[in-house]
Amino acid sequence: MALVVQKYGGTSVGSIERIRNVARRALATQREGHRVVLVVSAMSGETNRLLALAQEITRVPDAREMDALASTGEQVSSALVAMAVQAEGGKARSLLGHQVRVRTDGAFTKARIQTIEDAAIFEALNLGEIVVVAGFQGVDEAGNITTLGRGGSDTSAVAIAAAIRADVCDIFTDVDGVYTTDPNVCPSARKIERISFEEMLELASLGAKVLQIRSVEIAMKYDVPVHVRSSFNNEPGTIVSKEDVSLEGMVVTGIASDKSEARVHVVGIHDRPGAAAELFERIAEKNISVDMIVQNVITDANPVAAITFTMPKNDLARAKAWIEETARGLGASQIRYDEDVAKVSIVGLGMRSHAGVAAQMFRILAQEGINIQAISTSEIKISCLVAAKYAELAVRSLHDGFRMGKSD
Amino acid sequence: MALVVQKYGGTSVGSIERIRNVARRALATQREGHRVVLVVSAMSGETNRLLALAQEITRVPDAREMDALASTGEQVSSALVAMAVQAEGGKARSLLGHQVRVRTDGAFTKARIQTIEDAAIFEALNLGEIVVVAGFQGVDEAGNITTLGRGGSDTSAVAIAAAIRADVCDIFTDVDGVYTTDPNVCPSARKIERISFEEMLELASLGAKVLQIRSVEIAMKYDVPVHVRSSFNNEPGTIVSKEDVSLEGMVVTGIASDKSEARVHVVGIHDRPGAAAELFERIAEKNISVDMIVQNVITDANPVAAITFTMPKNDLARAKAWIEETARGLGASQIRYDEDVAKVSIVGLGMRSHAGVAAQMFRILAQEGINIQAISTSEIKISCLVAAKYAELAVRSLHDGFRMGKSD
Repeated sequence: MALVVQKYGGTSVGSIERIRNVARRALATQREGHRVVLVVSAMSGETNRLLALAQEITRVPDAREMDALASTGEQVSSALVAMAVQAEGGKARSLLGHQVRVRTDGAFTKARIQTIEDAAIFEALNLGEIVVVAGFQGVDEAGNITTLGRGGSDTSAVAIAAAIRADVCDIFTDVDGVYTTDPNVCPSARKIERISFEEMLELASLGAKVLQIRSVEIAMKYDVPVHVRSSFNNEPGTIVSKEDVSLEGMVVTGIASDKSEARVHVVGIHDRPGAAAELFERIAEKNISVDMIVQNVITDANPVAAITFTMPKNDLARAKAWIEETARGLGASQIRYDEDVAKVSIVGLGMRSHAGVAAQMFRILAQEGINIQAISTSEIKISCLVAAKYAELAVRSLHDGFRMGKSD
Repeated sequence: MALVVQKYGGTSVGSIERIRNVARRALATQREGHRVVLVVSAMSGETNRLLALAQEITRVPDAREMDALASTGEQVSSALVAMAVQAEGGKARSLLGHQVRVRTDGAFTKARIQTIEDAAIFEALNLGEIVVVAGFQGVDEAGNITTLGRGGSDTSAVAIAAAIRADVCDIFTDVDGVYTTDPNVCPSARKIERISFEEMLELASLGAKVLQIRSVEIAMKYDVPVHVRSSFNNEPGTIVSKEDVSLEGMVVTGIASDKSEARVHVVGIHDRPGAAAELFERIAEKNISVDMIVQNVITDANPVAAITFTMPKNDLARAKAWIEETARGLGASQIRYDEDVAKVSIVGLGMRSHAGVAAQMFRILAQEGINIQAISTSEIKISCLVAAKYAELAVRSLHDGFRMGKSD
């Protein structure tokens, strides 16, 4: 008998008929002898409907009120799913963030889970009930409702799985697993059977949208195996778990591309120790996260530094004035922005033991005539910034070049 | 400086534009120097939308889950109203039932308020905020969300006003006060300026829908003056407060009619002590509330009793089998039901000191050829059961007969 957490996203509970399917699947799991905790998102479209109401009132709604508003989406779906389990003859109860006691910090609209109590969940499980937890939501110390930000239901599910020491956390979604790369971009993309937490973390960070980064971090920290699978069939999906020796055969496990960042190019900052540090410290003050950073020194009469970095396009409008003020203060003569860029990344534990993976990546891109604007690497990841128009071509040629496709 | 509770019903927050009006009115009250607590219903239509979702899943949704579902309606409107106050330049925060700690019993879908804490409300008021409380909802001892039943937002508002010792509880609604009778039935109906708690309680019990009975009970118990007024204009409405000497001039204050009850006629119950008691005890076991009761003994060879009583039509379907089983067990030979009845009632503190009011009522009805099927009275109320088709005629003729109309 296992203790199973099953998370269903907005599409999976997007209609009454789908909610019935969720209930049936949960009951089938229970009948196999398992104890079942469901974590549900809002019905698809509902969060946007609520946001639109708020936007009608004010362009920048108060974050605390936004969370009180948005959290109703999951409250509705958790109650409906509990009713559906009952309608199918099972026992169930819904639990909200404040009822489970999903305690978060007070950062409205992007709160982080601090602790989760297991008492309310086990009390219901011990009565033979299927527990339906409203995902995405918690309460801060003062009892204010908080939300974890978009996609936060994955995080809720994994954190709850960790708190109750579940054997597995099934993430049911509208795709049937984690793919080597986006199948819409690369038709030969292949479903990955098993992937390590570290690799999944890199892929999620790099724009693979199947799992929230934060949920993978928690799964890794508490060693909760996560099973990403389709809510529309019973096929096995992708198991995300501790590093697995059998994976070592593949050098590159996944490829991701991400067009959400813009490139900022700052020329002429004084080439003195600490100038770059000051620039990024002051940008960080504004809560803007900078990703790739490249610095060159132009050795002219007066040595000046050229710094290139990337940051979310979404933040660019509000950040521009601040970046320019800061950069000018540090002597910058020129600041350029480029939003037509994409970050293409390869990820794989195998890179640790295989030399030359970076060189092979650069060669594959060069063969396609794709210029690399910036590079960043980690132990198991290499990212290249390229012109946005080349993103899909880069993904496909890397997928072929590293022989990641289906075996046929 | 007064402490004011303002309650806005579903129509008053039925659109974003109306929500803005609520915010402006609350701010105007605050600018006059008052501290303001709003209690809001769900946007009109929202509760029905949620009910329809539940009905799609199951004809009889679990009461606990129904409350978790339905309470989102007020959560949405309270957050939107708080946002609207902020958008107008004010300070505000929404508070839910579990945040205020509106503690109720555990009777889901029709819970009764037991205690309300004032700390969270005063904390916000002391910061200069307008507090927006989600009406209709509370939590039971175990932390489950409960609702007070349809119209429960009135009760929330008055109970909160009592808990924080507010100077007045304004009930903003889509009518501009309490009328001597339904103006749709009787064009000469007149808005009442002041009415006592006792009279309002009788009128509310008798089907005048402007205030929930429970809210009047609480207002009377804690002596909270209630001001029923229109959310669409600034005219004074009707003040419901302690008995007022100036009212004594009018014998009859209001007339109500109610078609929601059915008449049950039971013939042949053994005429022995306790037979009628047993019938009504057993009906009460099933939580069916019986209203008017008339008993006659038919003096035949064997004396048998004929008992007539009224009960909600809504309960009739589920109650019939139980009533018949019980009545047959007590010797009943015949049980008849009549749903085409109406209860027409006159209410007034003046009846206490004026003799002959009942006789006058019966005479007015007789003059119109209206047969009275049953009568029940209290110190300040007389109700007559008549054929449903005569309800409107009865109301108009009583209104004229007791000279309650506009003076012109």
